[in-house]
Amino acid sequence: MPFDDAKGLAIAIEEARAGMKEGGVPIGGALISEDGTVLGRGHNMRFQKGSAILHGEMSTLENAGRLAGSVYKNCTMYTTLSPCYMCSGACVMYGVKRIVMGENSTFVGGEDFVRAQGIELVNMDSQECKDMMAQFIKERPSDWFEDIGE
Amino acid sequence: MPFDDAKGLAIAIEEARAGMKEGGVPIGGALISEDGTVLGRGHNMRFQKGSAILHGEMSTLENAGRLAGSVYKNCTMYTTLSPCYMCSGACVMYGVKRIVMGENSTFVGGEDFVRAQGIELVNMDSQECKDMMAQFIKERPSDWFEDIGE
Repeated sequence: MPFDDAKGLAIAIEEARAGMKEGGVPIGGALISEDGTVLGRGHNMRFQKGSAILHGEMSTLENAGRLAGSVYKNCTMYTTLSPCYMCSGACVMYGVKRIVMGENSTFVGGEDFVRAQGIELVNMDSQECKDMMAQFIKERPSDWFEDIGE
Repeated sequence: MPFDDAKGLAIAIEEARAGMKEGGVPIGGALISEDGTVLGRGHNMRFQKGSAILHGEMSTLENAGRLAGSVYKNCTMYTTLSPCYMCSGACVMYGVKRIVMGENSTFVGGEDFVRAQGIELVNMDSQECKDMMAQFIKERPSDWFEDIGE
């Protein structure tokens, strides 16, 4: 039986909440194979590590460590927010099979790009994800713009 | 006077050679503003740090640290090799103005994608860059394929 997307997103949300508690951008991710194995999970570390590249999905890929290219082809990247071009490009480079995102009301990343590259993209339209980002952006707008290069 | 692209690429090549000496993938980068300020420089750290995301250009962005989004718009990313989709996507997300690559005979990354996003892309067609990669791939083909997710 395929892994349940709601369970995958729930892990990404746990990561986003962990990031929020640390004072970071509340975006999280999880890289999960078709049999449900969590290969990696992580959250945005811009403010925790002074990082320009550790978005939620990048942190997830980094925490998964070095993997053979073939492993990604069988995986779904769960993320609480529509993936920006950097994170989209990373998923395309590694050839992840699917991307499941919590929402894309707050921000729309490289959605057309990943679809054109043959990756299945699912939007869970999660109110919980929207609420986390709405609170963060209301409280720290300039930190949010910095995180997306604006 | 605009910064000399040959000088920028020379810094990226220095980084690639440093990576080679460390036993890593010999790909380096430098993020340089129009006035010639080197904001960051770095090289691929897959084998040195067990990293899935520290390609040469990503390492460069990370070493540049947190910057306002406006800073990137005035910058050139120098890289010894055609940037993969992850690194291309990072440049697109941050809106770097130009990408100057050492060569694209070894590997062609997201070139059409970055051009379509309005980034100027210059190929220096450097024999030195080609030779570094040819030696690495000959000696360690599986490490190379892992680095590009194949």
